Amino acid sequence: MLKKLTPNTDPALWGLKDVIATGDDYRASLMGRKLRVFLMGEQIYEPSTHPIIAPSVNAMAATYELAEEDEDLATIYSPLAESRVSRFLHIAQSSDDLVGKARMQHVLGQRTGTCFQRCVGLDAINALHSVTFDIDQVHSTSYHERFLAFLKQVQKRNQVVGGTMTDAKGDRSKAPHEQVDPDVYVHVKRSDDEGVYISGAKMHQTGCINSHWLLVMPTLRLGELDKSFAIVGAVPVHAKGITYICGRQSCDARSLEPGTLDQGNANFAGQEAMIIFNEVFIAWEHVFMNGEHEFASPLVERFTTYHRCSYICKAGVGDVLIGAAAEIAELNGVERASHIKDKLIEMTHLNETIRSGALASAYEAKPMKSGVFLNDDMLANVAKHNVTRFPYEISRLAQDIAGGLMVTMPSEQDLNNKEIGDLVRKFLVGRSNSNSEDRMRILRLLENMTLGRNAVGYLTESMHGAGSPQAQRIQIARGANFKDKQANARRLAGIKQSGTP
Amino acid sequence: MLKKLTPNTDPALWGLKDVIATGDDYRASLMGRKLRVFLMGEQIYEPSTHPIIAPSVNAMAATYELAEEDEDLATIYSPLAESRVSRFLHIAQSSDDLVGKARMQHVLGQRTGTCFQRCVGLDAINALHSVTFDIDQVHSTSYHERFLAFLKQVQKRNQVVGGTMTDAKGDRSKAPHEQVDPDVYVHVKRSDDEGVYISGAKMHQTGCINSHWLLVMPTLRLGELDKSFAIVGAVPVHAKGITYICGRQSCDARSLEPGTLDQGNANFAGQEAMIIFNEVFIAWEHVFMNGEHEFASPLVERFTTYHRCSYICKAGVGDVLIGAAAEIAELNGVERASHIKDKLIEMTHLNETIRSGALASAYEAKPMKSGVFLNDDMLANVAKHNVTRFPYEISRLAQDIAGGLMVTMPSEQDLNNKEIGDLVRKFLVGRSNSNSEDRMRILRLLENMTLGRNAVGYLTESMHGAGSPQAQRIQIARGANFKDKQANARRLAGIKQSGTP
Amino acid sequence: MLKKLTPNTDPALWGLKDVIATGDDYRASLMGRKLRVFLMGEQIYEPSTHPIIAPSVNAMAATYELAEEDEDLATIYSPLAESRVSRFLHIAQSSDDLVGKARMQHVLGQRTGTCFQRCVGLDAINALHSVTFDIDQVHSTSYHERFLAFLKQVQKRNQVVGGTMTDAKGDRSKAPHEQVDPDVYVHVKRSDDEGVYISGAKMHQTGCINSHWLLVMPTLRLGELDKSFAIVGAVPVHAKGITYICGRQSCDARSLEPGTLDQGNANFAGQEAMIIFNEVFIAWEHVFMNGEHEFASPLVERFTTYHRCSYICKAGVGDVLIGAAAEIAELNGVERASHIKDKLIEMTHLNETIRSGALASAYEAKPMKSGVFLNDDMLANVAKHNVTRFPYEISRLAQDIAGGLMVTMPSEQDLNNKEIGDLVRKFLVGRSNSNSEDRMRILRLLENMTLGRNAVGYLTESMHGAGSPQAQRIQIARGANFKDKQANARRLAGIKQSGTP
Amino acid sequence: MLKKLTPNTDPALWGLKDVIATGDDYRASLMGRKLRVFLMGEQIYEPSTHPIIAPSVNAMAATYELAEEDEDLATIYSPLAESRVSRFLHIAQSSDDLVGKARMQHVLGQRTGTCFQRCVGLDAINALHSVTFDIDQVHSTSYHERFLAFLKQVQKRNQVVGGTMTDAKGDRSKAPHEQVDPDVYVHVKRSDDEGVYISGAKMHQTGCINSHWLLVMPTLRLGELDKSFAIVGAVPVHAKGITYICGRQSCDARSLEPGTLDQGNANFAGQEAMIIFNEVFIAWEHVFMNGEHEFASPLVERFTTYHRCSYICKAGVGDVLIGAAAEIAELNGVERASHIKDKLIEMTHLNETIRSGALASAYEAKPMKSGVFLNDDMLANVAKHNVTRFPYEISRLAQDIAGGLMVTMPSEQDLNNKEIGDLVRKFLVGRSNSNSEDRMRILRLLENMTLGRNAVGYLTESMHGAGSPQAQRIQIARGANFKDKQANARRLAGIKQSGTP
Repeated sequence: MLKKLTPNTDPALWGLKDVIATGDDYRASLMGRKLRVFLMGEQIYEPSTHPIIAPSVNAMAATYELAEEDEDLATIYSPLAESRVSRFLHIAQSSDDLVGKARMQHVLGQRTGTCFQRCVGLDAINALHSVTFDIDQVHSTSYHERFLAFLKQVQKRNQVVGGTMTDAKGDRSKAPHEQVDPDVYVHVKRSDDEGVYISGAKMHQTGCINSHWLLVMPTLRLGELDKSFAIVGAVPVHAKGITYICGRQSCDARSLEPGTLDQGNANFAGQEAMIIFNEVFIAWEHVFMNGEHEFASPLVERFTTYHRCSYICKAGVGDVLIGAAAEIAELNGVERASHIKDKLIEMTHLNETIRSGALASAYEAKPMKSGVFLNDDMLANVAKHNVTRFPYEISRLAQDIAGGLMVTMPSEQDLNNKEIGDLVRKFLVGRSNSNSEDRMRILRLLENMTLGRNAVGYLTESMHGAGSPQAQRIQIARGANFKDKQANARRLAGIKQSGTP
Repeated sequence: MLKKLTPNTDPALWGLKDVIATGDDYRASLMGRKLRVFLMGEQIYEPSTHPIIAPSVNAMAATYELAEEDEDLATIYSPLAESRVSRFLHIAQSSDDLVGKARMQHVLGQRTGTCFQRCVGLDAINALHSVTFDIDQVHSTSYHERFLAFLKQVQKRNQVVGGTMTDAKGDRSKAPHEQVDPDVYVHVKRSDDEGVYISGAKMHQTGCINSHWLLVMPTLRLGELDKSFAIVGAVPVHAKGITYICGRQSCDARSLEPGTLDQGNANFAGQEAMIIFNEVFIAWEHVFMNGEHEFASPLVERFTTYHRCSYICKAGVGDVLIGAAAEIAELNGVERASHIKDKLIEMTHLNETIRSGALASAYEAKPMKSGVFLNDDMLANVAKHNVTRFPYEISRLAQDIAGGLMVTMPSEQDLNNKEIGDLVRKFLVGRSNSNSEDRMRILRLLENMTLGRNAVGYLTESMHGAGSPQAQRIQIARGANFKDKQANARRLAGIKQSGTP
Repeated sequence: MLKKLTPNTDPALWGLKDVIATGDDYRASLMGRKLRVFLMGEQIYEPSTHPIIAPSVNAMAATYELAEEDEDLATIYSPLAESRVSRFLHIAQSSDDLVGKARMQHVLGQRTGTCFQRCVGLDAINALHSVTFDIDQVHSTSYHERFLAFLKQVQKRNQVVGGTMTDAKGDRSKAPHEQVDPDVYVHVKRSDDEGVYISGAKMHQTGCINSHWLLVMPTLRLGELDKSFAIVGAVPVHAKGITYICGRQSCDARSLEPGTLDQGNANFAGQEAMIIFNEVFIAWEHVFMNGEHEFASPLVERFTTYHRCSYICKAGVGDVLIGAAAEIAELNGVERASHIKDKLIEMTHLNETIRSGALASAYEAKPMKSGVFLNDDMLANVAKHNVTRFPYEISRLAQDIAGGLMVTMPSEQDLNNKEIGDLVRKFLVGRSNSNSEDRMRILRLLENMTLGRNAVGYLTESMHGAGSPQAQRIQIARGANFKDKQANARRLAGIKQSGTP
Repeated sequence: MLKKLTPNTDPALWGLKDVIATGDDYRASLMGRKLRVFLMGEQIYEPSTHPIIAPSVNAMAATYELAEEDEDLATIYSPLAESRVSRFLHIAQSSDDLVGKARMQHVLGQRTGTCFQRCVGLDAINALHSVTFDIDQVHSTSYHERFLAFLKQVQKRNQVVGGTMTDAKGDRSKAPHEQVDPDVYVHVKRSDDEGVYISGAKMHQTGCINSHWLLVMPTLRLGELDKSFAIVGAVPVHAKGITYICGRQSCDARSLEPGTLDQGNANFAGQEAMIIFNEVFIAWEHVFMNGEHEFASPLVERFTTYHRCSYICKAGVGDVLIGAAAEIAELNGVERASHIKDKLIEMTHLNETIRSGALASAYEAKPMKSGVFLNDDMLANVAKHNVTRFPYEISRLAQDIAGGLMVTMPSEQDLNNKEIGDLVRKFLVGRSNSNSEDRMRILRLLENMTLGRNAVGYLTESMHGAGSPQAQRIQIARGANFKDKQANARRLAGIKQSGTP
């Protein structure tokens, strides 16, 4: 068990002195950081207490709380820190480590029913482990050592490392150096003895405001002329020059309403923001790539391989949706209808197919030169590709089972209204002896996951996070080895020659 | 062209004197009706002016505006009124009339991108035409004449007739007369010389507040002991004793925010409400069934046959979504990518499959004894069943094309904020020379239709409106005539005997 | 009713004197024609009596037999012949004619459970009606008159017109005139006062051997330099210089075995052959295009529009498969299992979706300048595109219901073997009182349609006949009118300007 | 490497003295066994030399040849035999052993393109390891010891163990003891000091004729009154009283034709037969269950859990089909078309999803009390369930890429015919410089796998082998733990109480 410490009350010292051991430690660590955050047109001075942002802080806090409750599941011995650390900060020493990571993510999906936002950084540090090692081999640099020193501190303090990758991109048909406005890709503006200064913007970055560090990384293959875009470094979330603009989510404003019912899942939500860098400083000790453009592509590929497997979390979220659908069927009194049972089975089948793909990719991991293990690439892509499809079908089946009331139901305020509350209760009753409010709550959870705030994570993020479907198809084509398959087919068809002219 | 009249300014006279000829006439006709309406826990005194309800009024008004702009498409000669009337009030004299109805619904789906709410009443009057006729044949009643008299007035005044069918249902395993609380099914509480008094509630009734009349109908097969539930009648929307509780929709509260961008489709939305009847009076002249329980089932079946075909509107809404997806692809500068083109084609293919099914069902209509034409039952069910599937896949593909920005994008207020508005503009630019705000507007429209307010109509209503998927499967099984198919298979397989023992 | 005549016994006179009024007339008309036909490496001198070819003759004969049994369904008044003629030879005078054609095809699919091969010619004559008319308008030729004269004779004699379109194609990246061997596209080799002489080959031509005439047509868009490939004409099937090589089909050799059980559908099958033309003469009166290359593309497009709708036959064949699946479920005693019923419903739903698409396309037909009606292009493509998918899923579900015995069952010879026949009977019994042989017959019919001889027509031909899936997608894209849809989406999203810069 | 021995030339001694070390040893071991085998109504005296059966012998021999070529992949150290043995005879000591088994099956699918028939016995011995152990615990019997003794001998001799499970079943609504004819379930007819005598029949038993031993097992849950049906034992394939009736397969008769082209995959095929037992003797030392009816159900469940994972072979077979599709695309010259590439990717994605599921199930295996490892049940069912779907879609896509020629192509005899062979060659040429015969061979391979002989294994066996789809759905429902999922959903929805009343 990680040692509990007094919450850090001096905002100037967040994460510099203490270990963040509990969910409450973590919440405390976010206070007083003077971030520049905007949400719905207003500057938010203490984001983690804002009703729209708080559920995303809770989801991140769940990663700490799980470690308190189930040490085996959420922590592991790190040779670097020479102690148990959060699995979210661990460099995979084996395929079992990647399986352990996947199991933890699956459980956290179940516990929160949403995106808990801590995977980007985890997948980034694992990718950087081998990439910094490989750069050093070629360029005789010392990025790997720097990186390990950084990581060791972060592991000890148990901080949240966020990652930022997706640039604004501007004209998608042009390379970074060809853009009219270079800021559409994050790049080094200038450097001095202390470090480099970067400008640009990173889009839809999961959980960034709830993190302590941001790992800035390039988003695509870079050429010789894109050198200044080949920058990797760690930046404190509260660094000078950063502006965060929170994205808005379906039904986000319900978090501003009184009550909790209409939110569906009032405690947990995901969060993304746009991050704008205006000459943000990165100390040399936190720079892990600077101009070695030919390593941008391996970094992106290894990161996405890890990250595509992280989408096993959606199988955990899917379990919540299956549970909600099974529960509403029972509350509606139709749980014995064969078509209802069959739909629940289909949802489970699809959901477990997702799980199996990510597990297989973890088990089939292979070591890189630096020693870190990397998920099997083909299976990672296949697993994620199913994630771009099956949650939509699971969601459709959940809506089928839910019934139309999910989208035509009175509000919580109607339920609490003196004049009509009893009418709502009277007519929304389902099965005998069931409670109308329970039924409303489950229906709102189903709405939350299929149309509302957590549909953002369960559906659209499943589509585009860790790369859109077409990105996976490209990787699947690369790994398919069609030529070998063709030669084998020719052999079985009785064609003599060994190749195709 | 229908004659334009001065808007009805005397609320007491709405719809009693004047013809509603224009969208503005229609809007005027809704004012001052003193309905008892609740929305989000508050009583709303002039619902059609409420920012959350107004878009649904606009969608209904579009049915009048279309008639102003394209008389052929939206009006037709009615032998009953002896003049052209709205197709929404017309009794189908031929299969061509049903095709004409379908075309109009398709166009209205395109024009509004949502549910325009006027089909339930249309399908109800067509079903009642034959059912009242058939009851009279058996019971020597005079419902059909009464019904025609009512309908003639409604046609002349060009009012909106809404329908209400789905009861609260309570314990789904019990018949209406077995329920602990009989109010979970609307029923006759008492009657006198003037008429009957009904109590109960009808759930998720589309556009009810925006209608002038409600046709109350039973929702399922009724037995001898359910006689008091076998009531059909027309009630003014503003009748004494009715309470409306508006359902809340995903992102509905965005209509309360300043600006229009974040609403996606600020002008148009659907609307459903729960309707509670507390001893509501129906004059005998407006009673069209009263105790003839054996006709409840034919009424429901004929209504749903018509209504399942009305879901051709979703092909019109699908056109909007396809257009939005094609537009965002262009604004993103990726419209030439083969996988993008292929997804747009797939969306179109699925969407046109929906359209073709409804058209075929209309063309294959057959006359009933009363002379009204009824859509082909098998094809109506098949068409609607595809509507419970394809919009979800079209929506998934739209989200694929849209990109993740759809759910992580800053709000309109951020765009308008002095400090950060320019940053949003700078970084959300897509293709060269494109406008960031345009891109945001299209993305919000995509959000609106796949997660937000109009996803309610495009997805969940597509699933459950006019009967949930399983209801269609039951009808498909009934129409499949498996026994004949088996005999034919036996013949081709060379089996001698003509049947199966 | 068409008048019955004595079968034509003088081969030299086939189709020149007599009307083919019955199935037997038709069979007689095929005799003694001295075709040069090869099948499995051997020359076949009287193909219609060959056990492998005979079932395909029966399927074609069914088109005559249906006309005997149901005149309304299979014949119609032709203004050209001034009498009732087979619908297979009729020029569509209205959308109703196209609906009538579709109904007939649907019924013939049910009656034969296979491809009855008479649609290619029907769709070709309808396409040529408008194309010859249009050529004449531009080139002041008289093809249309010639064509009508030809057609009138064919209608009167009630002959079978086959069509041939698909060339061998050689190197698919080159135009016809660029090919090393010009014969890979059929072309005019030379011409004289009497007519033209064509060489080349046409691939997988349905029912050609069972026809009386072949309409030779180009297969793709042709350019100025491809003029000699722009040839359309009618050739007698028995013309000098033609060689037919029959394609082999899955399980074709079972037709050579004793007994009928293992064939599954012993009476009916489809048939395709490769046709090689070696300077085959076409009289000028039978030439309907000669060098007007710019009309090749409209001809192909109109032909495929008609022909894609002809695939409604697969809904008829699907009815057979559904019947066989329902029957085997009953023979296995599992017809009440909810998952079995659900699969039969799903099969029906998919099958009826096919039917509805083709019907809608027929109903929505529009007249061409020549007066002939043409199916709606978008809906024809959508209908056919579903045919490239749903029969495979229907077939999969049929195999699911059938059980594994379908592919592990002893042969008919085992059933008839003295030593083991009783063992087969004893152990293959299903439900009480059922007959083992019946069960075997139905299983063989299921095998026939999902793996065997008629799977060729039900599956692979559904995929590639009338154009492969990608051809439909191209047409769907053309008809989708994305630009209008985009403008509409922009309007609803609140974007001011009317177009995209 | 297993030691090679002189082929066993004394049929009386097969498998009693020698180790079968090579494919040729194996082929020799099948000779002279005097089995009573029927095929297409004739008794076959040396089945392994029969042209229809030989390809299935080759597929089985491939399991020996792989062991010769790749010892690690196909053999493993067995503590029982105290030496390396074939993985097909190994008791899984760890999840790695099950992964190793899966890898071997995947490769054999690739090498043979069909069912190599040796998995049933492998999965049966693993299931019996724990079941015999568990029976002994309860009944103080010594089945486990007997079983190990038997297995040790079989491992040493490297024989093929086949399994037989599926009974004829008669009236599916009745238990075995209720059947009119008890023989529809295999049962003990009588017993004596030497052993038991069984009668009945087992249906569609894969590779039985090519095996040395048959493990007879019950096929379903048995009750107290079904005791005599609760029999498990090992019977030599050549035991007295057994009759084998080979099932016929699509296109099986092509193996009787000259040439190899039209067979598609001339060397390899699967094989199933019906096995009839007429008082067949099982020595006590080979009886592993006799009356302990309550263990029938665990035996079936454990066997199917293993066996469902064995369907990873279909991913290997899928690789062949993908290779053939990629090859024909190249031979057709369309391999660069984006829709072709996309279809190949989709095929690969589906195929790898199958592979990942089986791998995950193997990795997640858990030990039983007897020490043997058992695949994860949920993931085994999920993997197999995908096998009942994806091969059909992969096959559909392969047919799409193949083009229609696959089913309309002339035969090999036509290609070799002096008169027309050159015409076939001339017109079937594809891409420049390609060979027509190559193209024909690949098309025939595609036909073989999607309609022909190996479609039996790739499609229908994928559907029904190791349990039909509904059997997997029942197991998925059992493992889904809906109650826990519901409780979790209630927690997230904010419902207080812990359960549902």
